[in-house]
Amino acid sequence: MVSIAIVGGSGYTGGELIRILSAHPEAEIVDITSRQFEGTPVHKVHPHIRGTDLVFRNKKPSELDADIIFTATPHGASMKIVPDLIETGAKVIDLSGDYRFNDIDVYEKWYGIEHTSDLKGVFGLPEIHREEIKKTTLLANPGCFVTGAILSGYPLSKAKLAERMIFDSKTGVSGAGVNPTTSTHYPNIGDNVNPYKVTSHRHMPEIQQELGAFSDVKISFTPHLVPVIRGILTTNHCFLVDGADITSEEVLDIYKETYKGEPFIQILEDGEIPRLSSVRGSNYAQIGCFEIDETGRLVIISAIDNLVKGASGQAVHNMNIMCGFDEKTGLDFFGMHP
Amino acid sequence: MVSIAIVGGSGYTGGELIRILSAHPEAEIVDITSRQFEGTPVHKVHPHIRGTDLVFRNKKPSELDADIIFTATPHGASMKIVPDLIETGAKVIDLSGDYRFNDIDVYEKWYGIEHTSDLKGVFGLPEIHREEIKKTTLLANPGCFVTGAILSGYPLSKAKLAERMIFDSKTGVSGAGVNPTTSTHYPNIGDNVNPYKVTSHRHMPEIQQELGAFSDVKISFTPHLVPVIRGILTTNHCFLVDGADITSEEVLDIYKETYKGEPFIQILEDGEIPRLSSVRGSNYAQIGCFEIDETGRLVIISAIDNLVKGASGQAVHNMNIMCGFDEKTGLDFFGMHP
Amino acid sequence: MVSIAIVGGSGYTGGELIRILSAHPEAEIVDITSRQFEGTPVHKVHPHIRGTDLVFRNKKPSELDADIIFTATPHGASMKIVPDLIETGAKVIDLSGDYRFNDIDVYEKWYGIEHTSDLKGVFGLPEIHREEIKKTTLLANPGCFVTGAILSGYPLSKAKLAERMIFDSKTGVSGAGVNPTTSTHYPNIGDNVNPYKVTSHRHMPEIQQELGAFSDVKISFTPHLVPVIRGILTTNHCFLVDGADITSEEVLDIYKETYKGEPFIQILEDGEIPRLSSVRGSNYAQIGCFEIDETGRLVIISAIDNLVKGASGQAVHNMNIMCGFDEKTGLDFFGMHP
Amino acid sequence: MVSIAIVGGSGYTGGELIRILSAHPEAEIVDITSRQFEGTPVHKVHPHIRGTDLVFRNKKPSELDADIIFTATPHGASMKIVPDLIETGAKVIDLSGDYRFNDIDVYEKWYGIEHTSDLKGVFGLPEIHREEIKKTTLLANPGCFVTGAILSGYPLSKAKLAERMIFDSKTGVSGAGVNPTTSTHYPNIGDNVNPYKVTSHRHMPEIQQELGAFSDVKISFTPHLVPVIRGILTTNHCFLVDGADITSEEVLDIYKETYKGEPFIQILEDGEIPRLSSVRGSNYAQIGCFEIDETGRLVIISAIDNLVKGASGQAVHNMNIMCGFDEKTGLDFFGMHP
Repeated sequence: MVSIAIVGGSGYTGGELIRILSAHPEAEIVDITSRQFEGTPVHKVHPHIRGTDLVFRNKKPSELDADIIFTATPHGASMKIVPDLIETGAKVIDLSGDYRFNDIDVYEKWYGIEHTSDLKGVFGLPEIHREEIKKTTLLANPGCFVTGAILSGYPLSKAKLAERMIFDSKTGVSGAGVNPTTSTHYPNIGDNVNPYKVTSHRHMPEIQQELGAFSDVKISFTPHLVPVIRGILTTNHCFLVDGADITSEEVLDIYKETYKGEPFIQILEDGEIPRLSSVRGSNYAQIGCFEIDETGRLVIISAIDNLVKGASGQAVHNMNIMCGFDEKTGLDFFGMHP
Repeated sequence: MVSIAIVGGSGYTGGELIRILSAHPEAEIVDITSRQFEGTPVHKVHPHIRGTDLVFRNKKPSELDADIIFTATPHGASMKIVPDLIETGAKVIDLSGDYRFNDIDVYEKWYGIEHTSDLKGVFGLPEIHREEIKKTTLLANPGCFVTGAILSGYPLSKAKLAERMIFDSKTGVSGAGVNPTTSTHYPNIGDNVNPYKVTSHRHMPEIQQELGAFSDVKISFTPHLVPVIRGILTTNHCFLVDGADITSEEVLDIYKETYKGEPFIQILEDGEIPRLSSVRGSNYAQIGCFEIDETGRLVIISAIDNLVKGASGQAVHNMNIMCGFDEKTGLDFFGMHP
Repeated sequence: MVSIAIVGGSGYTGGELIRILSAHPEAEIVDITSRQFEGTPVHKVHPHIRGTDLVFRNKKPSELDADIIFTATPHGASMKIVPDLIETGAKVIDLSGDYRFNDIDVYEKWYGIEHTSDLKGVFGLPEIHREEIKKTTLLANPGCFVTGAILSGYPLSKAKLAERMIFDSKTGVSGAGVNPTTSTHYPNIGDNVNPYKVTSHRHMPEIQQELGAFSDVKISFTPHLVPVIRGILTTNHCFLVDGADITSEEVLDIYKETYKGEPFIQILEDGEIPRLSSVRGSNYAQIGCFEIDETGRLVIISAIDNLVKGASGQAVHNMNIMCGFDEKTGLDFFGMHP
Repeated sequence: MVSIAIVGGSGYTGGELIRILSAHPEAEIVDITSRQFEGTPVHKVHPHIRGTDLVFRNKKPSELDADIIFTATPHGASMKIVPDLIETGAKVIDLSGDYRFNDIDVYEKWYGIEHTSDLKGVFGLPEIHREEIKKTTLLANPGCFVTGAILSGYPLSKAKLAERMIFDSKTGVSGAGVNPTTSTHYPNIGDNVNPYKVTSHRHMPEIQQELGAFSDVKISFTPHLVPVIRGILTTNHCFLVDGADITSEEVLDIYKETYKGEPFIQILEDGEIPRLSSVRGSNYAQIGCFEIDETGRLVIISAIDNLVKGASGQAVHNMNIMCGFDEKTGLDFFGMHP
């Protein structure tokens, strides 16, 4: 049994951490912080979480005493508190972008703020970095788009088969967080599709870093907001390197082989295509399609729940690995279709 | 041809006024004001309105020169400018609640602000007040819930047949206006139903005023926010006065007779039930059902588009009446199903 | 550990039974039947259920060998197989309407078919019938609307305080089942609200039977289809018996007292109002509001997930009671907001 | 004034033809046919169309007497009746795929049925084929995806600048037609995104035919069903031919020049991005973005209403051209945002 603190727990990822960890047999939440909601019982903010004694506290990092600390704080805020949290002796799982980049310059360019922490995080995609995750005390949990995109492209990049991948992603609105904006106003996004940051979303360099570590694949990424609450459907339009004379079936085999034994990867075949409802609320990622059209375009499609496999579920998965638990502990539930 | 100014034209009702008036053969918009968007072309705020020269101006009331002025300003703001607008010689159609109440005390109680204007408006529901509308220079356009509720109950109240009406209303989110809030945040209202102000919505006294003018009918009203962009579906659970031994067919006849010749009322029969898509985008109100259950409950259902018949369309209808135009001018288009 | 068979498992309630029972520590699904999908792996029909060996079989009732058999079969079909299932020695939990009625005549009138079985079921609402449920071998799981309505009204009817209840229910589309129809076609119900069977829905007599067992309360019921996948929000417009001079606070107390210790009832206070997202995917029912307006109308609002507390979750709850398990076994997870 | 007949008018495109033509000052609908709904008043099928005398008739082609006949009949059905309709002396506007292909073999391959008519249609995209449209008596109205895709790519193909275009399209569910299916069942597509026919949709060869007429551009196309009623948002991921050293601004200029004077094309600049709500219900197409990322990918985005610019509105536009009317007649209304 490990003790858990959640820093900045009033957002959607905070709510999901509580939802998941409440049913985790090896974890107990001992603290949850929020400056804005200090003193407020958790159910007033997360109306589905009831019957707990949890109340938001406004504690300083040094006041926290927990084995594992999740920081569900905004970009820029995490790096200001993570060093102090590490000082307490806790292992830290940071859900912000602050510790995801190998190259600080890339971070500073895309996030537009100075990086002020010397700590290095391990990029928390278990399917790629499991061994480093086991040993780290600072885990940088990947971005939601990033998770969906990388999972759809990793086997091909690793096999040095891909020249170019164009990730056309469709995301649910919860990815924008808990604060209402013009973009998330129901009359603006209901019955609508809104492309945004078409060539300039800051999840792009993160995808580039991870997939580019294996090959020279060129990465393009365009997100679209769709009238969906949860989920990211990524259509990876992929072009192979010259001379890669490979069939659909062979691509499928590469994916099955690469993800063999992965507890949360579901490879779809026999004409099944990933869709959001199959993974809704769960930590599973579905990957499928593997069709090649007459122009040589290969299509790989992935579906995840942005708040679970794309955030809090993956964070718990990482915790399980860091603590030596069975990886599916607390995450062994199916998606919710319909 | 009349010249039109719209004061406070950056919200949804402003957008709808432009959409409708742009195709109105007897009207020309000469001015549209907004403090926030001064100098901004209209299409930057209303992305569907293009190819016009309209630019938001920050003009004082006294600077406006138009035959008809629509005030799409918030409650409380309208009463501060309407007297000056009337001074310019214009006829004013106010879309706020400021001039809807016969009794200022009722306004002050429900809106919680002092009423500072001496002017009296005519309550702009053409189906009840057509003759006064023809003569007025200050038209108080009814609230959206109010329009749907009154239309469903007016014939029975007028016939002194109803003892009690319970209006259970389901509204689209555009009724909350253009500004994003926690309630209108897509992840909070998508796939959800949220009752609010269950016994305390300020449209209640407005319904009471209008239906109570004809009989002692008791009025209850509860609104629900549903994941819909436009439209209000009102289920009027109605109980008749003692001794009112009346059949479904007779109720239907009363409605047909009361609304005979009304250009925007569609009475449904033969098992057809009003629904939002039938009136979406149009100025029509559908009224139907007229069923009586074993406990004596009579159900009347109405459907309107809250932004059209519930706001801007009705405002243009009132303008047509005030100007002596054919009432359907500029409003003679069907709803948009699907 | 009990062995489970699911008869007619290809619909939504079948999918939910599998989703829930797969994580139930005391249950193992040994058989799942479907005539239409014989030989098909479960994930081809329920795309979220993966990694199991479950395959639909077309077995006769007498071929099933399980401790508990859930019949997720249509009305009329259940009564043809349940007697044979009982013969196998299994306990049967029937999700259809066939065994819900004390009075066969009521069933035959509202369902329009002859009732051909002599068996009597126990009405499976644990909050009312727990003791009988413990002893029965034939459990009639309540209808979805019925569950939401009864829970909102039971304490008042039991206290003989209510003269009349008008249930205005808003249901998600999954309540219509897995088969596409004109009503469930996305363009027809998206962005829409559709009242149906306004005074003639067959869940009405079921509500009447249960609430009418405690008092002479008059029951009215009107369902509305809303663009939601899961959930039923019931607005109970309630009128008290003559002389019942009772306050909001006293009503709240009655509800808290009546549902004291109930594992799946959440009574909301302090201005919180039930909404669908709070219970989405969970077996909880939220009950709240308790406001009384100036006309004496008392409003009680309940929210459930129609497929869980309104169907499969409640069925598992009943199984837990029938088997003597802790009642929350396998159901101890929160709803999914957002 | 021209007389109009609509053959097969019970679907969504039939409904839209009536909605639009009812307000068209130069057109009068004299006949509307449907085998299934013979004798039924139009409002029983199209609940928003009221106050007309229109009743569905089951007439043979030779019995129709109209200046313009719209065939809103399925693929395969059109070619069986169009020759007889042309025989009556009418001009025919066919909304099916039957007459869209220059090469019958392509049609037969992709539609899987034999083509049995000798007539040749003119492909009815006014922005490309206006001059031929003016002269034809058989107009083949383009497919919905096709319209959105071609408009986004035509200027570049015409300028021989594009080597490859990948059309990633997101469509509203009304594109699937009026008949309910598993795919269009609300619980299956609500809160979901479903890619389908990922590399094999039959609108692909139609796009190929039209864009390939100008250059050797390679075409890929993948449609996604999104929880939207109307609209197609097409993201055109475009790669330029070798040596095409061109800026965003130059691309924008090419689009503005190519579509100069086009009454229904709206080119967006200054950071505005097309979205569905801006064109909802209207015949406008929005085209925008024109951004180039670091890998050389150029993104063009288009938005149309699939039932209007993608079907019935474009058909009326074509009628206006064929009849010599002002092209905007009856189509001069804005989209409906929100």
